[in-house]
Amino acid sequence: NTSFDRNKHPHRRYNPLLNEWILVSPQRANRPWQGQREKTAADDRPAYDPDCYLCSGNIRANGARNPDYKGTYVFNNDFGALLNEEVDFSEGHSGFFTLLPERGINRVVCFSEDHSLTLPEMSVEQIKNVVDAWQAQFIELAALDHINYIQIFENKGSIMGCSNPHPHGQIWAQSSVPAMVQKTQDQLKSYFEKNKRTLLEDYIEQEITAGERMVTENENFAALVPFWASWPYETMIISKQQRENIAAFSEDEKESLAAILKDLTTIYDNLFETSFPYSAGIHQSPTDGKQHPEWHFHMHFYPPLLRSAEVKKFMVGYEMLAEPQRDITPEQSAAILRNLPRIHYKKK
Amino acid sequence: NTSFDRNKHPHRRYNPLLNEWILVSPQRANRPWQGQREKTAADDRPAYDPDCYLCSGNIRANGARNPDYKGTYVFNNDFGALLNEEVDFSEGHSGFFTLLPERGINRVVCFSEDHSLTLPEMSVEQIKNVVDAWQAQFIELAALDHINYIQIFENKGSIMGCSNPHPHGQIWAQSSVPAMVQKTQDQLKSYFEKNKRTLLEDYIEQEITAGERMVTENENFAALVPFWASWPYETMIISKQQRENIAAFSEDEKESLAAILKDLTTIYDNLFETSFPYSAGIHQSPTDGKQHPEWHFHMHFYPPLLRSAEVKKFMVGYEMLAEPQRDITPEQSAAILRNLPRIHYKKK
Ligand SMILES: O=P(O)(O)O[C@H]1O[C@H](CO)[C@@H](O)[C@H](O)[C@H]1O
Ligand SMILES: O=P(O)(O)O[C@H]1O[C@H](CO)[C@@H](O)[C@H](O)[C@H]1O
Repeated sequence: NTSFDRNKHPHRRYNPLLNEWILVSPQRANRPWQGQREKTAADDRPAYDPDCYLCSGNIRANGARNPDYKGTYVFNNDFGALLNEEVDFSEGHSGFFTLLPERGINRVVCFSEDHSLTLPEMSVEQIKNVVDAWQAQFIELAALDHINYIQIFENKGSIMGCSNPHPHGQIWAQSSVPAMVQKTQDQLKSYFEKNKRTLLEDYIEQEITAGERMVTENENFAALVPFWASWPYETMIISKQQRENIAAFSEDEKESLAAILKDLTTIYDNLFETSFPYSAGIHQSPTDGKQHPEWHFHMHFYPPLLRSAEVKKFMVGYEMLAEPQRDITPEQSAAILRNLPRIHYKKK
Repeated sequence: NTSFDRNKHPHRRYNPLLNEWILVSPQRANRPWQGQREKTAADDRPAYDPDCYLCSGNIRANGARNPDYKGTYVFNNDFGALLNEEVDFSEGHSGFFTLLPERGINRVVCFSEDHSLTLPEMSVEQIKNVVDAWQAQFIELAALDHINYIQIFENKGSIMGCSNPHPHGQIWAQSSVPAMVQKTQDQLKSYFEKNKRTLLEDYIEQEITAGERMVTENENFAALVPFWASWPYETMIISKQQRENIAAFSEDEKESLAAILKDLTTIYDNLFETSFPYSAGIHQSPTDGKQHPEWHFHMHFYPPLLRSAEVKKFMVGYEMLAEPQRDITPEQSAAILRNLPRIHYKKK
């Protein structure tokens, strides 16, 4: 028998944040691709678009008018998935037909008044304003009794279901802890109870020592391809110090977070010299009024592209029914990302 | 306060097959869509395409030539995600860097020599041949010592990562039970231990009584929108009798399965009068040599379309980070599907 080589042989890796396995098929990167190609994003947007419902001073779909904002601007989503109204509920749990009402608030966070920008094209200072807005929103929403979890995220690119290229993200604040966050919380909690340190405190230390999955780092944050990443260029930003949530960050830390966001998204854009699509979001402690020493701030980036600006990884069939599957290894992806220039390709 | 109404108010539903919750936002179906539109599939394929590597007698990417087959044809995937070779492994588990080699076999199942067909356009007899091939493959692969689970599935449509429109599916047979199947198994097992009946035996009975999520049924199978469906038009085919796996089906049952597959996929095509894309696959007992009285044959259909042939549901951002989310309710989807004609729109 040949000896196992993780760069050649199919294997499964364990994800301790979700208590799940993924399948890695390093040998499969060679298969020819004759399938669907994605449209790439038009890259010549004006700084102001009269038809954009997120631009300063424009009218939104529900008739409201945006103020003449500069920098960030936050408003309640006109077509939110949650409603804040309280409803009376008497049905109760019942076997196969179990449901529970869910209350919450959906907000949109415009990152800049400039329609033409994206995070990597903004200055660290401008990105710091976005981080400030996230922190302020988190603090405001966390103070509401009926809000127990706050999901901050960005869908970037039309391939990620983003229907407007104006730089913006979303916040969904709700009464329950959502399914995936609950799983991570269970994992973090049992690790903390056993080890008296957070899982990510230990993980980040071991990753910095190993080096091979690191993408970039600064004083307060590290960005890496997790050992168990399932998307081809999936990464995670982790705070080097244990912080339960974004409210705990100092001015310095917020600036560091802005700096690593700029670095990582610039690297992403440089990979295929395209405005790199992804869904990204912060995982942090629930706002249920309890102490959460097991929690450790991190931000996931799930980008769909695999081979080029036009060829994405399809998480379908086997992946939907059985288990996430990836082709190139996390170590190969990290090496590719790590070696890319830190200057945005448009500025070369 | 208003009283809760599941057709108006956001709520969460519980999925007992995965032990997970999903978010339902019935009020959100009204939001305007300005995002990406999908290309629809060209619908005028020839019965034979000289450039198709799945057509009878043609040469594949690796140089092998297909026989002049009629009906179904099965071969080993030339670029499989698994390798059947046994490797020596000594690394062992280790904390955050836990991995294990995975062995397996990937096969492609051509449904017909006719390049122009899809399941709904095939006769019940022709579909029965596909079911026969699935059963024969299952029996053959299950007999191998190192194969402990067999995932039979189809990715249909380029939007689902299918790179060749020739009617075909795949089989991934492997040494481990994949993550999602393992979860379902755990759920089925604890239900069976408690109730001495399979979870799906009880569920299907209650759904037939309720009626409101039923799509179609025949003597041996029912197709319905599960109470906890997360894709807009997600459905599940369930055998009315408890069967651990496809090997247990009689000729009659296989014909019934073929008939309900034709019905359901015809209904799907008629929804938007387009060749309806989906990933579909069978969940059944592992082939680990143990008894599995808790298992109950079912087949999931995960179709991406939401509003039309061009507008799909994006499972991104919130859904990737927090929890699956749907707009129209399962009851609304089931009513729409149930009321569609059973004759394929192309034959009208
Ligand atoms: O094997 P195919 O059809 O080339 O590939 C397709 O199905 C596979 C199994 O669901 C996925 O892993 C691939 O991402 C997808 O493109
Ligand atoms: O809210 P948007 O940007 O209109 O919609 C997008 O993001 C949401 C949250 O991830 C998803 O539920 C939608 O499917 C997607 O199209």
